[in-house]
Amino acid sequence: MKIKHIKLKKNMKVSELIDEFDSLNVLGAGRLSKARKIVSYMINDEKMAVFLSLGGPLVPGGLRTIIADMIKDKQIDVLITSGANITHDLLESFGGKHYNNLGFDDEKLNSEGIGRIGDIYTKNEDFVTFEERICLIFEDILDKKINTQNQRKTKLENEPNEMTKDEKLVNHVFSIKELLFEIGKRIKDENSILKSAADNNVPIFAPGLTDSMLGLQLWMFSQENRFILDVIEDMNELSDFVFKSEKVGAILLGGGLPKHYTLASNLLKGGLDTAIQITMDRSETGSLSGAPLEEAKSWSKAKCGSNLVTVIGDVTIIFPLLMASLE
Amino acid sequence: MKIKHIKLKKNMKVSELIDEFDSLNVLGAGRLSKARKIVSYMINDEKMAVFLSLGGPLVPGGLRTIIADMIKDKQIDVLITSGANITHDLLESFGGKHYNNLGFDDEKLNSEGIGRIGDIYTKNEDFVTFEERICLIFEDILDKKINTQNQRKTKLENEPNEMTKDEKLVNHVFSIKELLFEIGKRIKDENSILKSAADNNVPIFAPGLTDSMLGLQLWMFSQENRFILDVIEDMNELSDFVFKSEKVGAILLGGGLPKHYTLASNLLKGGLDTAIQITMDRSETGSLSGAPLEEAKSWSKAKCGSNLVTVIGDVTIIFPLLMASLE
Amino acid sequence: MKIKHIKLKKNMKVSELIDEFDSLNVLGAGRLSKARKIVSYMINDEKMAVFLSLGGPLVPGGLRTIIADMIKDKQIDVLITSGANITHDLLESFGGKHYNNLGFDDEKLNSEGIGRIGDIYTKNEDFVTFEERICLIFEDILDKKINTQNQRKTKLENEPNEMTKDEKLVNHVFSIKELLFEIGKRIKDENSILKSAADNNVPIFAPGLTDSMLGLQLWMFSQENRFILDVIEDMNELSDFVFKSEKVGAILLGGGLPKHYTLASNLLKGGLDTAIQITMDRSETGSLSGAPLEEAKSWSKAKCGSNLVTVIGDVTIIFPLLMASLE
Amino acid sequence: MKIKHIKLKKNMKVSELIDEFDSLNVLGAGRLSKARKIVSYMINDEKMAVFLSLGGPLVPGGLRTIIADMIKDKQIDVLITSGANITHDLLESFGGKHYNNLGFDDEKLNSEGIGRIGDIYTKNEDFVTFEERICLIFEDILDKKINTQNQRKTKLENEPNEMTKDEKLVNHVFSIKELLFEIGKRIKDENSILKSAADNNVPIFAPGLTDSMLGLQLWMFSQENRFILDVIEDMNELSDFVFKSEKVGAILLGGGLPKHYTLASNLLKGGLDTAIQITMDRSETGSLSGAPLEEAKSWSKAKCGSNLVTVIGDVTIIFPLLMASLE
Repeated sequence: MKIKHIKLKKNMKVSELIDEFDSLNVLGAGRLSKARKIVSYMINDEKMAVFLSLGGPLVPGGLRTIIADMIKDKQIDVLITSGANITHDLLESFGGKHYNNLGFDDEKLNSEGIGRIGDIYTKNEDFVTFEERICLIFEDILDKKINTQNQRKTKLENEPNEMTKDEKLVNHVFSIKELLFEIGKRIKDENSILKSAADNNVPIFAPGLTDSMLGLQLWMFSQENRFILDVIEDMNELSDFVFKSEKVGAILLGGGLPKHYTLASNLLKGGLDTAIQITMDRSETGSLSGAPLEEAKSWSKAKCGSNLVTVIGDVTIIFPLLMASLE
Repeated sequence: MKIKHIKLKKNMKVSELIDEFDSLNVLGAGRLSKARKIVSYMINDEKMAVFLSLGGPLVPGGLRTIIADMIKDKQIDVLITSGANITHDLLESFGGKHYNNLGFDDEKLNSEGIGRIGDIYTKNEDFVTFEERICLIFEDILDKKINTQNQRKTKLENEPNEMTKDEKLVNHVFSIKELLFEIGKRIKDENSILKSAADNNVPIFAPGLTDSMLGLQLWMFSQENRFILDVIEDMNELSDFVFKSEKVGAILLGGGLPKHYTLASNLLKGGLDTAIQITMDRSETGSLSGAPLEEAKSWSKAKCGSNLVTVIGDVTIIFPLLMASLE
Repeated sequence: MKIKHIKLKKNMKVSELIDEFDSLNVLGAGRLSKARKIVSYMINDEKMAVFLSLGGPLVPGGLRTIIADMIKDKQIDVLITSGANITHDLLESFGGKHYNNLGFDDEKLNSEGIGRIGDIYTKNEDFVTFEERICLIFEDILDKKINTQNQRKTKLENEPNEMTKDEKLVNHVFSIKELLFEIGKRIKDENSILKSAADNNVPIFAPGLTDSMLGLQLWMFSQENRFILDVIEDMNELSDFVFKSEKVGAILLGGGLPKHYTLASNLLKGGLDTAIQITMDRSETGSLSGAPLEEAKSWSKAKCGSNLVTVIGDVTIIFPLLMASLE
Repeated sequence: MKIKHIKLKKNMKVSELIDEFDSLNVLGAGRLSKARKIVSYMINDEKMAVFLSLGGPLVPGGLRTIIADMIKDKQIDVLITSGANITHDLLESFGGKHYNNLGFDDEKLNSEGIGRIGDIYTKNEDFVTFEERICLIFEDILDKKINTQNQRKTKLENEPNEMTKDEKLVNHVFSIKELLFEIGKRIKDENSILKSAADNNVPIFAPGLTDSMLGLQLWMFSQENRFILDVIEDMNELSDFVFKSEKVGAILLGGGLPKHYTLASNLLKGGLDTAIQITMDRSETGSLSGAPLEEAKSWSKAKCGSNLVTVIGDVTIIFPLLMASLE
C-alpha cells in the first residue's frame, strides 16, 4: 500500500497526530499507531482482562497520575510492577516528592542526602517520613490479622528455630498482593496508585517486592515482628485471576521481572490474546526484557495468531502520547 | 524543583501534552520539552539562520511534507542531507511512491523488483521512471550552462587524458548545491522538497550525494557527457553562508555525514549558537553520530555556553511530535 | 597520556590482546581492560566477598561452565540470579539440553514443542523430565524438614482458611536461599551451578525465583503440599552475609532484579567497595538496568571513591573474553 | 543441534576462545564465530576482492596499526572510509598523537585547545603542524600535475566566472582517490595507512572527504589555488575496480557513508558475494547504518544466497578480537 506523508497543522490534537502516523504506517510512527489500535481494543472489550506491567522508574518518572487514572477509569484489571514503583508511590502519599535539576555529581548528592535516578532525585528526609509512616501501617496490618497486641511483640531471638505460639503462625503469613491491598486500604492520598487499586479492587503483584525500600522497611519491621511474605501464595491468586478471565491483554512498559511475570502467568491457559510493549531494550542478548513479543508464542505465553506490537522508544514519551491519543 | 506528574485529558492538543512534559521536566519527556523551547526560539529569531540536517530515511519515512512545509514557512534556511533523501524526494516528484506491508523476505522482494528500507518499500519501475526523467533534467542543466548541443556530445573515450575544447571545461563544473538548485527549478511537484528549496532560495548541501541513486544516474550520464561535480566549491558556498549569518541554530535529525557537516561548517566562526538532535545513536563507540552535542564545544563546533539538547528516540515519532507542539 | 595503537600478532593469547587494549586505554577496549584490573583485584583479595549477579539468559547462553568453575575455584562468594538461570541449570542436570539453529517461526516452534530464547531453543520433553525430577526433590526436601510422611499429605482444600496441625507450620517455611541449597545438595551433575554452590557453601539468592519454570513447578507442588517461600527470610540471610564481609565487590552481568538486589543489599553497610557491569542497557530511560554504576554512589549502594567500570557490550562475548584474560 | 558451553583455560589463545564460541554457536558469541569464518574465507580467496569500510573514529580509536597491517599483508584490496580517519592517520604521520584521560568538561577542553572524541583527545598544536605539512603536500601534488609554478598562483578573485588559462583547467581536477594516493606517496611514516595503501596499490575512497579537517585544509588551499575535487571521477574508478573483480567481499566496521558506499558500489554487478558488519546501530529507525545486511539483498547490493553476518558490539573490542582469532 502507498504511504501517506505526515501532514501537521496548527493546534492539532494528539489523536490527529497519531491518525497521521496511521496513514503513514511505517517505522516507529507506524508501530505506535498499531499499538494505539490494540490498546483501544483491549480497554474497550468488556471480556478482556487488561494487565499493565511497569518496569523502570515510571512512577518517579512522571506516570503516576496516568496509571492511577487508568485504574480509576477501569481501563486496567491487574497491575504488575517492581517494588520501586510502589515505594515511590507511597513516598509521595506520605508527603515526599521527586525533584529535578540537581546535577550529576553522585558523591556530592550522597553528601547532601539526595538519591539519583537518571535526572530524577529523592531526598533522604522524605524516606525518613516514609519509614515512620509505613511501619505504623505494617503494625496495624499485622495487628488486625492476629487480633492481639501482646502476642505480636514476642521477640524472635528468644525462639531461634521455632515459635512458642506456632498454632497462630498462619496469621503472620501474607502474600505480596494481600500486603499491598492492605496498605492501599490505609492510604488517604487520592492520587495514590495503591489506594486507587484497593478502592477499585485491582490486584497489584510485585514478585520482586523485597528488592525495594519498601522491602527493606518490611525486613527491618520483621526483626521485631514475625512477618512471613509468601510468594507462592501470590501465584495462587494470580493464576486464579488468569483462569477466571475469558481473555487477557497486556500493556508492557519496560522489561524486567514485571514483563516476564505477566507473560509467564498467562502460560497456564495458552497465553495472552493480545499485547503491546514499549521499551528501549533490544533482542541481541537474548534477554527477555528486549525479546520481541513474537518469541512468547513459542512458549505459549502469547497465543498463536495473537496481535502483538513492540514500540522501541522512551516510555516517558511514548506511553503518554499513546494514551492521550485514545478517543 | 519538584516534578509535576503528567496529567492527560480527553482530546488534548499536542502542545498541551508537551506542556505536561515541561512541568515534569525529567527523562526523555523533559528533554523533548527542552528541545521544543530551543526550536521555537530558533525559528522565531529573525537573526538566526536555522540548519536542518537529515540522516536516515526521513523522506521515505514520511517526513517529506513536514520538511517541505518548514521550507515554505521560512522556518529553516539551509538543508543538509544524505543523497538518499533527495533521491526519494525526486522519486515521488516523478510519480513514484513508497509502500508499506510487503514483508521481510529480501530474496523474494528482490525477485519482485522491490527494494526494502526497514518496513518501507520502493519499486524498480518507479526507479526506471526516475532514471528517464532525471537524465533529461541533467541534459537541460548542462545545455543551459554550455549553451551548445553539439559540444556537449563530445565522447570522452576519444580524448583519454585531455579535452579538445578544454577552454570551456569550466562550464562543465558544478557544485552539488548548484546542481540541486538547478534540479529544483525544473520540478513541477508542489510537494517537492527540492522545488520548495529552489523557490524559497534555501540552499541544499549533500556532501555525500554521489552515494545515492541520484549520484549513480549522474555517473551514468557522465559516461556520455563531461560532468564534473566539485565538492570544494560547495565548501565555498556553505562557508559564505555561515559567515554572513549573525547567529546559527541547528536541528539535527539522525547522525551521519549531514550531522557532522553541519557542525563542522560552523567551526569557522566559533560554532553553533544553539542546537538540538534527535537520534537513537549512543556515545559509547565514540562515533560522531552518537556523540553528545556537548562534545562539539571542545572543537568550537558549538559555542561555549550554547544551549544544546539531545533527545534519544525514533525521529519518525519524535520530530513530528515536536513540530506539532509548536504554537 | 598518549594512546598506543593495538598491535596484533599470530597466535596471541587472550591476555596479550587485553594488554594491548590496556595500552590503548580508550573507548570500549579501554573500559574492558579496566574491568579486567578490577575483577583481578576482587578475586585475589582474600578479604573481599565477591558477588556475581546474572541477568539475562546466561546459562542457556553458554556461560554455565564458566560460572560453575568460578564457584569451584572460589572466585565468587555469592550468586544472585534470575529464576530462569537456575531452571536452565537444572534442566541440563536432569539430562535436558539447549539447542541452536532451529529458526525463528515462533508459531511453528510452538507446534513442535520448542521454546525460543533469541537463537537458543529448549524442548518440551526436557521440561517434562525437569518437572518429574524436581517434584521428587521438593518432596524429599519437605519430608526431611517435617520428618513425617503422612503429615505432608494433608490436602489443603479440606482446610480453607487454617490448618489442622498449625503448630508445625514453621517446618513448611523456606527461604529461597535455603531451598536452592537443598536442591543443590541433591544434584549429582558435576557441571551443575547449584551443586557447585552447595558443595562450596556459596549462597544463591534469586529474589524473583517464583517467576520461572522452577517457580511454576513449586507452585504446582504447593497445590498438594503446604509450602511457604518466605522472601523476607532471604533478606536476613543476605544482610547477615553482607555485614560479616569486610569488603564487597560485585561483577554485574546484565541488569534487572539481580543487579538491583546486589546493589541494594550493600546499602546497609555503606555500599560496594568496587564493581564492574557488562550490559547492553543504556541510561536514557532512568531504568536501573542501564544506570551507570556511579549513580549507586548517591544511594550509598556503592562507596564514594569506589572503583566502578561499565562495559557496554554483549555479555556472551565480553565476559568470557574478560575471564580468559586473567592470569 | 545441542550447544556446548564455553570452557575457559589458563593462558588460552584468542583463536581457542573463538573456537569455544563456535561450539556454542548462539547469541553474540555465535555470530562472532560465524564472522570469523567469513573473514577467514574472504582474505584467503585469491579471487575475492576484499573491501574494508571504516565508519566511526577507528583510527583515533586504536585500530590504525591493525588496518595498516591488513593492507601490508594484502588482506584487503580497497579501503572506504570517512575523511576523519584519514585526517587522524595523517595527524600521527606528521608527529601528532591521540591522548586519553583528559576529562569530559568540554568548555575547559576548548579553552585548553583540546578536541574530544568520546574519551580520546587531540591537541590544537598537532593540528597546526598538520596544516603546515599538508599544505606543502597539496602544493607539490598540484605542481607536479600542472608542471609550472607561476601558473598555479593565479588568484581566483581576479576571475569571477571563468579562467584566463582555461585550457589547462583539466590539470586542476582531481578525484578523491587520486588525491589520497598522491598524499600517500609523499608520507614517510611506515605506520601510515595512506602510505601503506599507496605502496601496495590499495585504492582509498572517501566520498565524504571534504567533511573533515583534511577537507577544510583543502578548501583553504583552494582559496589561493584552483583545485577541483571531482567526486564523479571516483565513481568511475570504483566501478572499474568492482567490474574487474571476480568476487567481492566486505568487512563493514560501523555504518554511515562508508558502509552505504561499499554496498552501493557493488550494486552494478549484482551485489556483494559475502560480508560481515560490526556495529552498535540497530534497525528500528530504518537507517542504513543499522540495517541488517539481508536488506541489501532486496537492492541487489548483496547477492541472493550470499553469506552475511552482523555482530552487534563495539568495534574497538570486537574487530581486534576477530582479527586476532584468525589462524
